[in-house]
Amino acid sequence: MSNYEIKSDNPSFVLHGIEDVKFENRPVPEIKNDECLIAVSKTGICGSDVHYLCHGRIGDFVLKEPMCLGHESSGTVVKLGPGVKNDGRINLGSRVAMEPGVSCRTCTECKSGMYELCPHMSFAATPPIIYGTLCRYYVLPADMLHPLPDSVTDEDGAMMEPLSVGVHSVHSLGKLQSDQVVIVFGAGPVGLLCMAVAKALGARRIIAVDIQQERLDFARSYAASDIFLPGARDPNESMEVYCARVSDEIRTTLNIPARDHGAVDLAIEASGAPTCIQMGINILKPAGTYVQVGMGRNMNVPLPLFHVINKQLKVLGSFRYGPGDYPLAVSLVERGLIDLKPLVTHRFGFEQAKEAFEVNKLGRDESGKGVIKAIISGPE
Amino acid sequence: MSNYEIKSDNPSFVLHGIEDVKFENRPVPEIKNDECLIAVSKTGICGSDVHYLCHGRIGDFVLKEPMCLGHESSGTVVKLGPGVKNDGRINLGSRVAMEPGVSCRTCTECKSGMYELCPHMSFAATPPIIYGTLCRYYVLPADMLHPLPDSVTDEDGAMMEPLSVGVHSVHSLGKLQSDQVVIVFGAGPVGLLCMAVAKALGARRIIAVDIQQERLDFARSYAASDIFLPGARDPNESMEVYCARVSDEIRTTLNIPARDHGAVDLAIEASGAPTCIQMGINILKPAGTYVQVGMGRNMNVPLPLFHVINKQLKVLGSFRYGPGDYPLAVSLVERGLIDLKPLVTHRFGFEQAKEAFEVNKLGRDESGKGVIKAIISGPE
Amino acid sequence: MSNYEIKSDNPSFVLHGIEDVKFENRPVPEIKNDECLIAVSKTGICGSDVHYLCHGRIGDFVLKEPMCLGHESSGTVVKLGPGVKNDGRINLGSRVAMEPGVSCRTCTECKSGMYELCPHMSFAATPPIIYGTLCRYYVLPADMLHPLPDSVTDEDGAMMEPLSVGVHSVHSLGKLQSDQVVIVFGAGPVGLLCMAVAKALGARRIIAVDIQQERLDFARSYAASDIFLPGARDPNESMEVYCARVSDEIRTTLNIPARDHGAVDLAIEASGAPTCIQMGINILKPAGTYVQVGMGRNMNVPLPLFHVINKQLKVLGSFRYGPGDYPLAVSLVERGLIDLKPLVTHRFGFEQAKEAFEVNKLGRDESGKGVIKAIISGPE
Amino acid sequence: MSNYEIKSDNPSFVLHGIEDVKFENRPVPEIKNDECLIAVSKTGICGSDVHYLCHGRIGDFVLKEPMCLGHESSGTVVKLGPGVKNDGRINLGSRVAMEPGVSCRTCTECKSGMYELCPHMSFAATPPIIYGTLCRYYVLPADMLHPLPDSVTDEDGAMMEPLSVGVHSVHSLGKLQSDQVVIVFGAGPVGLLCMAVAKALGARRIIAVDIQQERLDFARSYAASDIFLPGARDPNESMEVYCARVSDEIRTTLNIPARDHGAVDLAIEASGAPTCIQMGINILKPAGTYVQVGMGRNMNVPLPLFHVINKQLKVLGSFRYGPGDYPLAVSLVERGLIDLKPLVTHRFGFEQAKEAFEVNKLGRDESGKGVIKAIISGPE
Repeated sequence: MSNYEIKSDNPSFVLHGIEDVKFENRPVPEIKNDECLIAVSKTGICGSDVHYLCHGRIGDFVLKEPMCLGHESSGTVVKLGPGVKNDGRINLGSRVAMEPGVSCRTCTECKSGMYELCPHMSFAATPPIIYGTLCRYYVLPADMLHPLPDSVTDEDGAMMEPLSVGVHSVHSLGKLQSDQVVIVFGAGPVGLLCMAVAKALGARRIIAVDIQQERLDFARSYAASDIFLPGARDPNESMEVYCARVSDEIRTTLNIPARDHGAVDLAIEASGAPTCIQMGINILKPAGTYVQVGMGRNMNVPLPLFHVINKQLKVLGSFRYGPGDYPLAVSLVERGLIDLKPLVTHRFGFEQAKEAFEVNKLGRDESGKGVIKAIISGPE
Repeated sequence: MSNYEIKSDNPSFVLHGIEDVKFENRPVPEIKNDECLIAVSKTGICGSDVHYLCHGRIGDFVLKEPMCLGHESSGTVVKLGPGVKNDGRINLGSRVAMEPGVSCRTCTECKSGMYELCPHMSFAATPPIIYGTLCRYYVLPADMLHPLPDSVTDEDGAMMEPLSVGVHSVHSLGKLQSDQVVIVFGAGPVGLLCMAVAKALGARRIIAVDIQQERLDFARSYAASDIFLPGARDPNESMEVYCARVSDEIRTTLNIPARDHGAVDLAIEASGAPTCIQMGINILKPAGTYVQVGMGRNMNVPLPLFHVINKQLKVLGSFRYGPGDYPLAVSLVERGLIDLKPLVTHRFGFEQAKEAFEVNKLGRDESGKGVIKAIISGPE
Repeated sequence: MSNYEIKSDNPSFVLHGIEDVKFENRPVPEIKNDECLIAVSKTGICGSDVHYLCHGRIGDFVLKEPMCLGHESSGTVVKLGPGVKNDGRINLGSRVAMEPGVSCRTCTECKSGMYELCPHMSFAATPPIIYGTLCRYYVLPADMLHPLPDSVTDEDGAMMEPLSVGVHSVHSLGKLQSDQVVIVFGAGPVGLLCMAVAKALGARRIIAVDIQQERLDFARSYAASDIFLPGARDPNESMEVYCARVSDEIRTTLNIPARDHGAVDLAIEASGAPTCIQMGINILKPAGTYVQVGMGRNMNVPLPLFHVINKQLKVLGSFRYGPGDYPLAVSLVERGLIDLKPLVTHRFGFEQAKEAFEVNKLGRDESGKGVIKAIISGPE
Repeated sequence: MSNYEIKSDNPSFVLHGIEDVKFENRPVPEIKNDECLIAVSKTGICGSDVHYLCHGRIGDFVLKEPMCLGHESSGTVVKLGPGVKNDGRINLGSRVAMEPGVSCRTCTECKSGMYELCPHMSFAATPPIIYGTLCRYYVLPADMLHPLPDSVTDEDGAMMEPLSVGVHSVHSLGKLQSDQVVIVFGAGPVGLLCMAVAKALGARRIIAVDIQQERLDFARSYAASDIFLPGARDPNESMEVYCARVSDEIRTTLNIPARDHGAVDLAIEASGAPTCIQMGINILKPAGTYVQVGMGRNMNVPLPLFHVINKQLKVLGSFRYGPGDYPLAVSLVERGLIDLKPLVTHRFGFEQAKEAFEVNKLGRDESGKGVIKAIISGPE
């Protein structure tokens, strides 16, 4: 245990208000029961972190007190609470992916296998929670820690959070099966990870749709079997007609049947763009499944309900991740079925956290290289 | 067999064009293989029949040849094809509910238990099919005929078609379980039958929402445990705000929690009204199920996707009925769990078919009595 | 709160060894976090209590320390821990059914909606747990308490435990749907409660099989639609042949088809008798479901695997109860769909606990009346 | 079409009685409706063919008339019935895997997606059907033909039948998911194909158990990640104790936990041996799934029902294959996820059919090489 000396300070990267972040020293947290103290190793920046920085809120979650940012992290267990189970899963020194949401354990949702919907959820860097993982030490119950095999790096570990979003959407909700055809709208980090999951689970084809050729090219090099860049909308074309036309073009260009073997079984919408939502519904085969994972700007989005009825589709909302998602994410990477390394485009030291956020906001670094995922190291 | 003498003519009620219907004598159809000849006894008028009469089309289904109307029917088997199975299910003289859609049996959908999605479906009174059941004799394969127990009348038998729509939506797709709370938007025939199914399946509460007090009053006398009449929209209220407000009022007025036991597990949308679609999504509890059975006027409808994601809802389209729906419909009526009689508000002889359609179009008879279901007897 | 004065003693009925029970005064337990102190009102005697009394063990669960008996109880909440959620569900004075198993909340099973399989389960009156509910005061977390509506008595509340076993078997695992046909082997308390659940959930037929006519007569008066008493086995008949013959007799006598509508969809085996296990498999229709809820004397039982394969059956083990089972049990009684009162045949004061166990062991009281369920009141 | 000249004779390999097979010339069959005439290319010998040869029956299926053997075949479509759908799926000259069971299309099982359970099934080389595929020409409806991509050979096509048995057991019933651990008892053709399917679907570990080291060695070279050869039973050990001991040895030797991640999620029993059935139940983790695909000699087999209950297991019978199984089998081979070639150990010309059966009966050829699968070419 002498190897896991605990320092007396806890440097933290704290949001005080819109565009107002500071490095602070917060107290080293106490642990109790089945909790563990984790020395944070790597943290990925998520769109939501940037959104809080720029807007001070996401929907009803409004910053009211200074809040440490960060929730996509890995680390090393440096202290075990007295109630941590002695089952060898989590030990002193375990390298772990840190699942950032702690649910109440006793509500109907928690008990019926849907803890992601727990109304009492405490989620890192989400008001009213004031703790985030961009700091030296963080506390989580042992069961929220997912051991990383030797072949999985700390950076991979930090990526398990967005990867679990992909696992949740494609596997747990979308129920993708081997040989199915999936279309993914949006080739940002979440879309790319959904493609990676689909590939790892044996999808027959993975069709990426995006409005930037550069992102599509990356998608094809990474996990997509097919890519499609929709052309522009005619000035006098309604959105409805435009989307139906593009859906037909996708099918014709890529030789995708409208039904039966080879048709689109699963649509993952990870862009939030109203046109993509239309296209996703249009292109699905009868009895297909549509999963909305990207959150757009608008509360309300026009949906072609006519097709939902006539093709008897399932339209599913996907929220965070639930039981089994983190473990499957770790396993897919451990077994080499997903390679996360190509997605980490930018790396920063803890003291460079502000720059890291700046680059994320712009979406590109000074050299013009696009950001997929930027990772910040824990304090030294 | 002498009892089932077959007459030589087949009087039929045929649509030739918009608002152009004629009584005609069509040939008595031939039967082959496992088909049966049925002497039609009772036929209910469906909104789609009226829609073809008024518009000559429904969406992509366009009348091109004269088409006999009617598809909600019961009758008596008067002749058996040589290949009808000798298993005692269907005999000469069997009184039957007639399931009007004949699928191809060999496509992927047919073979995987979703024949309602068969792309080769032949459906009574739906172009390009020119046969309907408003005639003396109709042909169907034996397995599309559902024997009526003695306690179930021919009128009940004709009502099995819309009842199966309710069974499909509430049971087969909505998967309503005992003790669940269901809200039904729209108290027309389909909505009422959905309520009846929900009651028969042991729903804890069945909340009817409609914009006509008269219909709500009937719903409460029939199958709803609670009713709600939304107030008018404020002139300066957006649809979104209005719908959220009404959803809250429903919950407050009827004392419905937002989650957990007693919250709304299942929303059945049988009105097609954009406001009801909003309210259905708004009022559902987390992980709830929304089933769209009513087809509105618009292809596209604004959907609060934000809630679909955050509450991780299932939004399902419901199309006609599939395996097991007719048998369960018959059983629920046979066992007295559903009483169809109160829904038959108007009855007509075959020669009064035009009047029957007229009353249906108006929605009221001359005495002012509202139409729920009008039934036309077969030709004498 | 003055109404819920807590007495200073905790009279308890404690098992010290085989056939060795004593009334003792144990300390009033402390409560913490989200726990509640409950004044026990009514406790049913379960076969397992009697088994511990007679044998000092059940399988691997061996009595090593004195253990208070009892786990089928209702009571009144007399003290709330500081962490009990302030959501109005559980209040001081709430009358509740007490779910007796407390799981760890953090293992894979707990988190994926199967807490009944938690390896860290603490279950009342099951070694190594030394606490049971045959005492004045018992402690449980608030979420293990299920409020009883006014129409549900304390005796009903005590019966929720075995009723939840029936709900688990018939509903959660057996997935009984309206119109299905169920056969229940064994008309003891658990079998009868399974029949009651099947009736409440809309089974078409409920066929009771037992080897005592008296029990069958009660079953028919209570919840069975049909009963069957198997004849004796011929001396030179193998068990296999005997069981196949009886299965055929059941079908012939009660006019049950071998497949299709009206055939046996679900078999509940609540007797543990090897012959019944055979018959259950024999009589099921193709793709039917068999649920084993009764635990017989033998580890191994001959199973006609040939039929399991050829009819592609599901054979399911049922263990205790899981998420949602207690709430549904309470709701079925609250809504009058199940009447538990006919099952309570014997009532005892707390000081008569030994007599109560004696009567249970014999299965009959002095007057010859058979025991279905005996209830012991809490200490005065 | 001139390329698909149809010869006037139909040489067939016909079973007349026990050990009595003859080469005969049967008439070229007529085709109608949606049927196709197929020129058979390759046929695998199945254990059931050999069983009919040696015993003249399998259970209730008794040879009463001369029956052409063979049902594991591929071929080329040489004639299309007038009702074959013009959808490009099946054309003149299509190379196809031939699904040998034709169901009635109209019974409850057919319509609800379980055609394998159709009571009216006509299955090649299964009495009372007198047709098998060991002949020049065979007739099947177009939807029972599964087109073979160029990369899939005719021999592969013949292997799709047993592979579909594996797909049915592991995927459709066992519902194996990526990262799960599967144990397969029996390393014969079906067991090996189950392992191949498990590997193709992303199993974490595939543990093969057999009593022949040679077969285990092949399994490891083919698709198993781990192998285990049970030691002998002690003379004074009961079967129960022996099986429990071996199950523990498997876990200890191969480092398999009893529950949680890495524990056995799915057991496939493809040997029919009573000891393996015990071990399969013993070794499964709580809530695990057991699929019985091998049919043993006995109707009744002792099953440790105690564990089925306590671990709340699912025990499933697997019968042939159903909707979607053949297409997935073809896709897994097409995409290189399964290599069938190593399994074809012996090849024979049509005129060598008797020798082929002889070698199959012995399980080894003259050189001592063990038979996994022997393939017979169609008549020249």
